[in-house]
Amino acid sequence: MGTPVIQAPALEMLKLLDALAEFSAPGTGVTRLLYTSEWRRAQLFIQERMIGFGLDVTVDQVGNVYGRLQGANPEDKVILTGSHIDTVVNGGKYDGAYGIAAAVTAIHYLQQTFGHPLRTLEVVSFCEEEGSRFPLTFWGSGHVTGMYGGGEMATCVDAEGVSLLTAMTDSGFGVGSIEDDRDEHDRGTVGNRVGSRAMGLEAGARRSDIGAFVELHIEQGIILEKTETEIGIVQAIVGQRRYRIKVSGVANHAGTTPMMMRLDALAGLAEMLILLESLALEVGENLVATCGRLEVFPNTPNVIPGEVVFTLDIRHSEEEELGGFCDRTLSGFRETAIKRGLEIVVSLSLSTPPAPMDMKLCAMLESTCQKRGKSYRMMVSGAGHDAQLFAPQCATTMIFVPSQAGISHSPEEYSTPEALAAGLDVLTTMLYELAYV
Amino acid sequence: MGTPVIQAPALEMLKLLDALAEFSAPGTGVTRLLYTSEWRRAQLFIQERMIGFGLDVTVDQVGNVYGRLQGANPEDKVILTGSHIDTVVNGGKYDGAYGIAAAVTAIHYLQQTFGHPLRTLEVVSFCEEEGSRFPLTFWGSGHVTGMYGGGEMATCVDAEGVSLLTAMTDSGFGVGSIEDDRDEHDRGTVGNRVGSRAMGLEAGARRSDIGAFVELHIEQGIILEKTETEIGIVQAIVGQRRYRIKVSGVANHAGTTPMMMRLDALAGLAEMLILLESLALEVGENLVATCGRLEVFPNTPNVIPGEVVFTLDIRHSEEEELGGFCDRTLSGFRETAIKRGLEIVVSLSLSTPPAPMDMKLCAMLESTCQKRGKSYRMMVSGAGHDAQLFAPQCATTMIFVPSQAGISHSPEEYSTPEALAAGLDVLTTMLYELAYV
Repeated sequence: MGTPVIQAPALEMLKLLDALAEFSAPGTGVTRLLYTSEWRRAQLFIQERMIGFGLDVTVDQVGNVYGRLQGANPEDKVILTGSHIDTVVNGGKYDGAYGIAAAVTAIHYLQQTFGHPLRTLEVVSFCEEEGSRFPLTFWGSGHVTGMYGGGEMATCVDAEGVSLLTAMTDSGFGVGSIEDDRDEHDRGTVGNRVGSRAMGLEAGARRSDIGAFVELHIEQGIILEKTETEIGIVQAIVGQRRYRIKVSGVANHAGTTPMMMRLDALAGLAEMLILLESLALEVGENLVATCGRLEVFPNTPNVIPGEVVFTLDIRHSEEEELGGFCDRTLSGFRETAIKRGLEIVVSLSLSTPPAPMDMKLCAMLESTCQKRGKSYRMMVSGAGHDAQLFAPQCATTMIFVPSQAGISHSPEEYSTPEALAAGLDVLTTMLYELAYV
Repeated sequence: MGTPVIQAPALEMLKLLDALAEFSAPGTGVTRLLYTSEWRRAQLFIQERMIGFGLDVTVDQVGNVYGRLQGANPEDKVILTGSHIDTVVNGGKYDGAYGIAAAVTAIHYLQQTFGHPLRTLEVVSFCEEEGSRFPLTFWGSGHVTGMYGGGEMATCVDAEGVSLLTAMTDSGFGVGSIEDDRDEHDRGTVGNRVGSRAMGLEAGARRSDIGAFVELHIEQGIILEKTETEIGIVQAIVGQRRYRIKVSGVANHAGTTPMMMRLDALAGLAEMLILLESLALEVGENLVATCGRLEVFPNTPNVIPGEVVFTLDIRHSEEEELGGFCDRTLSGFRETAIKRGLEIVVSLSLSTPPAPMDMKLCAMLESTCQKRGKSYRMMVSGAGHDAQLFAPQCATTMIFVPSQAGISHSPEEYSTPEALAAGLDVLTTMLYELAYV
C-alpha cells in the first residue's frame, strides 16, 4: 500500500529546539549537564510539552523521560525514537536535542493526522549520553538496555567531587532499585502516572518491550556536507579501541649527542605516526585512527626527548577489521621501537564493539528517502550514540543530517533549517510506516 | 727543544674540585647561580687559593676573577686559561669548575717547578656562562670579549623578579662603567690590588691583551666514552640555529572525520620530523638537529590535533653547512605543509655562528697528546662554551675529557679521576709550551 501525504511541521520542531537551547548553564553555546538545574528544567519542559500533546508521560528511576502514544495492538512491541537531553560543556544546540525535538514533533503530527497507531509509539529524552559531568557515558540508554549495575553511583564523582549517587538523589531520582530488571516494562503502572509532572515519580529503568529504536541525529562529521547529501542512513556505529602508549628512550644533550647515538623517543613516535596513517589509508574509509593527545618529556628545546606518552583512538565498523588493524599497528610500533632501541608500553584503555544497525530498517529508510525525494547515502557513524546500546537488543537504526563544516561539541555546531526539516520528514515517514502500516 | 718531565698534582686538583662543590644552594647536585651567596663564597674561595699560590688577583666589574703569573716578556700577550664558576640548577660538580680547578693547579705547579714564565699566564674564573639565573648567557666571557653593552642589566630579571643590575650591585659589582673598553687592560692598576680579598675592587671587564685562550672542560657528550678516547681536541664549537615553528590544520572529531578529509597538524609534524632526521643523517656526524619541545592543541584523545608548536635546535661546525641544512629542512617542511593543506609559520629565535678553534693550537695539542701518550681525537663541540667568544679575537682552543654516559647538567654528571688527571696533564704541558718555551 502507498504512504499518504506526510507533512510534519518543521517550524514547530525548530521552535522546540530553540526553546530547549534556553536551558543552559551560563557561558557560550549550550551546557546542560546531568542532574543540574538546567537539565531538570529541560526535562520538565519536555514533559509539559508531551502532556500538552496528549502523550502518556513516564519518568524512570535515572531520569529518562518517555512520552507514549498507545497503539491498538498491545501485543506488539514499542517503536521508540528519541535521543539524549544532556550536552557537553559549551556544546551546541543540535547534538541530542534535535533527535528529541523531531521525535516529539513527529509523534504529535502523526497523532493529530492519523490518530492512534497500530503499534505503540514512544519518544524518549535520555537523561545522559556525553559523559561530560561524570566520567561515564550512556547513563540513560545504558540503564534502559541493562548496561549499568548501579555500583558506579557511589564511586563516580564529578569535577567538584559530588558523587553520581548524591547528584541523582538530590534531583529526586534513584529511589528504590534501578536494577529492577523486569522482563516486561510494567506499562500498567506507568499508565496510572499519565499527566504527572513530578520528576520523582519513577518507573524501573530497564526495558525489554522495545521492538525498534530509531534515532535521528546530526552527523557531527563532514561527509554529508562534502558529498552534498541530505540524509545519512547509518549502517553501523563504529567499534572503538583506545590505547595509552609510552615510548621511552634516553633524554640527552641536543648539542653533544650525535644523531647516530640518540635514543630519541619523539623521533620514534614520528615514525609510528607515519605508519599509523599509512596503514589506516590502506584499510579505507571505514577506518579512522588518531593520535590526539601527546606529552613529551622533558620538553625542553635543547634536550633530546627521552619519553613520549600518547593516545591512540581507532575506530571501525567491523570488529574483525578493527582488531586486525590494531594488531598490525601495534606490531609495527613494536618493530619501530626495537629498531630504534626504544621501549614501548601499550595499555588498552577502552574497547567498544561495533554496533551494526538493522538491515531491514536501513532498507526501509532507503526506500523512504527515495519516496520522499531525499538524497541519501549509507554510512558508518564514527561517533558513539545511544543507538549502539539498543542495536544488540532490538531492531535499531539511525538517521543523520548534515552538520555545517562537520563541527560539533562546540557553540558553532550548526545544521540548516532545511537539513533539519529533511530529517524530520524522513523520521516521520519512517515512524508512520513502522507504527501505522 | 724537548719538554721536561711534567707531573702536575692531580690529587690537589681533585681536592680543589671537591672544595668548590661545597659552595652550593641546598638540593641535589651543585646549584651555584650568578651573584648568589654560594657563588660569592666560591669566587672568594678561588681568590684565596690564588693568593695562597702567589698569584696576582684581580676581580673585574662583573665579577670575573683572575689569577696572574707575570711573565718575563711584558710585550707578549697573556696566555689565559680557565672556565666558568656558575652552574645550572641541580647541576654537577665538573661543568666549568673542572676547568678552573685544573688551571689553578697547573699554574701553581708550573710556578713551583719552573718559576716565572716568559709569557704571562693567567687563570680565570668566569662569573657566568650557563644562563640559569638570568635569561642570558656568557655574562662573564661576554664582557671580557666586548659582547655586552650594559643595556641588558636593567631589563633582565630572574625568576624572583630581581633585575640583573640589582643582583650585581647587591653583590658589590657594576660600580662605574663596565663598558670601559680600554685598548690595554690596565695591569698596573691591577697589580696594586694583589692580595686584595674584597670582591668590590674591580678592573674594567673588557680585555684586549689576551694572546691565547685554552679551556679545559668535560665533554658533556658520549663520543669520548664510546670511542674510549682520553682527550678530545676541539676544532670548532658549533654554530646554532633555534627555531619556533607553528603548524596549523583543523581540529576535528576523531571518529567522524575520514582520514582523507583530515588536516592533522600532528601527522604533518611526524612527516617533518622524519624528514629532519633523514636530512641530518645525510649530512653526517658534525650536524645535530633536534625537536626538543612540542605542544599539541587541543591535546584531547578524541580530537584530531589542529595545531602543533615546536622547537628546532640545529647545530653544525661550519656556517655554510648549517645554513644550507636549515634552508633544506625548512623548505622541506613547507612542502610537507602545502601537500597536507597545513599552514606553517617559522620564526628564528637564536642564531650563533660556529667558532672555529685555532689550527696551530689544535696541532700543538695533538703533538702534546702524542708526547704524553694520551689517546685523542679531533672533534667538534656540540655545546656552547666561553671559548667561542674568544675564538674571533685570539688563538683559542679547548680540551675535552670524557663524561660518564655523556651525562651533564645533572647531579649524575661524572668523570673519573683518571680522565680528569689526563686533562690536567695535557693542559699543564700545553701551558708550559705556550708560556715557557
